[in-house]
Amino acid sequence: MPILVVGSVALDTVETPFNRVEEVLGGAASFFATAASLYSPVNLVAVVGSDFPQEFLDFWRSRPINLDGLQIREGRTFRWTGRYHLDMNARDTLDTQLGVYAGFHPVLPASYLESDLLFLANIQPELQMEVLQAAPRVRLTVLDTMELWIMTEYDRLTEVMKRVDVLLMSEEEVRQYTEQASILKGVRELLTLGLRYVIVKQGSYGALLFGADGTYFSAPTYPLEEVVDPTGAGDAFAGGFLGYLSTVAPRADGRYALDDLKRAVVHGNLIGSFACEDFSIARLRSLTMDDIMSRYRSLVEYSHFDPAWNSQAK
Amino acid sequence: MPILVVGSVALDTVETPFNRVEEVLGGAASFFATAASLYSPVNLVAVVGSDFPQEFLDFWRSRPINLDGLQIREGRTFRWTGRYHLDMNARDTLDTQLGVYAGFHPVLPASYLESDLLFLANIQPELQMEVLQAAPRVRLTVLDTMELWIMTEYDRLTEVMKRVDVLLMSEEEVRQYTEQASILKGVRELLTLGLRYVIVKQGSYGALLFGADGTYFSAPTYPLEEVVDPTGAGDAFAGGFLGYLSTVAPRADGRYALDDLKRAVVHGNLIGSFACEDFSIARLRSLTMDDIMSRYRSLVEYSHFDPAWNSQAK
Repeated sequence: MPILVVGSVALDTVETPFNRVEEVLGGAASFFATAASLYSPVNLVAVVGSDFPQEFLDFWRSRPINLDGLQIREGRTFRWTGRYHLDMNARDTLDTQLGVYAGFHPVLPASYLESDLLFLANIQPELQMEVLQAAPRVRLTVLDTMELWIMTEYDRLTEVMKRVDVLLMSEEEVRQYTEQASILKGVRELLTLGLRYVIVKQGSYGALLFGADGTYFSAPTYPLEEVVDPTGAGDAFAGGFLGYLSTVAPRADGRYALDDLKRAVVHGNLIGSFACEDFSIARLRSLTMDDIMSRYRSLVEYSHFDPAWNSQAK
Repeated sequence: MPILVVGSVALDTVETPFNRVEEVLGGAASFFATAASLYSPVNLVAVVGSDFPQEFLDFWRSRPINLDGLQIREGRTFRWTGRYHLDMNARDTLDTQLGVYAGFHPVLPASYLESDLLFLANIQPELQMEVLQAAPRVRLTVLDTMELWIMTEYDRLTEVMKRVDVLLMSEEEVRQYTEQASILKGVRELLTLGLRYVIVKQGSYGALLFGADGTYFSAPTYPLEEVVDPTGAGDAFAGGFLGYLSTVAPRADGRYALDDLKRAVVHGNLIGSFACEDFSIARLRSLTMDDIMSRYRSLVEYSHFDPAWNSQAK
């Protein structure tokens, strides 16, 4: 089941307390496509400049990633520079150069109309809306966003949120959007927009799945010895989440079984953990299904506990 | 199996973004004893001043809490004033008045020598060492500490850490003590001191259990609609952890089964979550085993996922 993704492709310069890399492959769509293509074909919609390195295009072509929707425009590729702090859950954006991304409008080639799942990565709500209007009817639409759009495009973002199935937000974004200190209260408010699920990303602490039907699931994260670079972890999460869902059949009513949604969140967390183990997409590109399976099994062992509340209760 | 606790009893003044209470019952030993006494008898060692409200003594006497080791000295009870920020995982201490706590030395009455488990709550390492020297041989000793002692009493604290079985630390405390950015690396360093387990408290994100034997367990937290006051949640965690262990028999080799240790961490998290639902010990004092059992069952549902990594793998 092909997955459609619309988002940024960038050249990132990243500083961590221990290292620095320059002009590596970045952008939400890059992380997502690399991750999701482990599971299913990906249809990529994005823009790059004429300076975009050929090697990255070659890598994507080596994967089931359709580049028909990748616009290559005269000019410079979008560049982002960021710096992480010691706990790696916080970062500062030092510089953003839009380049060809400034005039970007997504165009969906006819070959993309068979996509079954859609990921609207973190781009302007206006562009997300354009995609929703042009996109085929899909089984599930997942939306990501960021503080900037909550602050500057609240109304337009809200319109987009009303038209998607699943919203990804960090805890800070839930608080910013809803002005609720309580995540649970904030999420309840978000669900009134008509969303079927809200997934709250908690960085190194995991992710929470909330359903309009009352579903609640707290997914653990895989413990990392070292976080090299968390950039793209949220998009890798989305790639694992939609990637896993692309491999399963929904129930007769078109909804996914709760077991599969939970598993999808766990896959998301796992792929996010792999993304953090190296800069750029370095770890994601070497990743295999065996790696994922092995880490999944460890996570069961690391997080499950006896369902009987005491040893006498068995 | 009686549990011995040595720690502070205080009168707390707490400000949250939404509320403020004055001179309510606080202190690590108060939260711990109230929580642990739901499971087993508690032997309390602490000091209060002659101004300590009779109603709190009456409440403890209504529980299986032995007060033979509670010193009542002429003077003022220890007072603490703190303020929480909006995300409730961070707080500032605004004022501390030691009162009779300044000259405190723990004395263990003969009736306490039958204690089976020991909790050294967050007091000066010097006093913790005095207790270790005076205490009976127990099955398990759990140590709590705080930033202040890591900064000012590093060597003495280290001596105490070498003599206990389980260390409780927040992520920040692990980083402060070990100067490692990575929690996993920091904990590995802590385990070289001879500790059997390190439990890393993550506030509203749960707790991690690390064993010298390679054990790793990530325990989820119960989702709270509203955090009224997180003061004492760490001590309530310890009360749930040791409280649960007090109800089970160790294996033939004297160690607890991994299933029971995991369950104990989950009980800790649950009791910690109840503690946050009201100021002071208000929610803990009304708590019943049925409440705990019900929340335990919800947590299984909220955090367990299918052990098969995909729906075909079943």
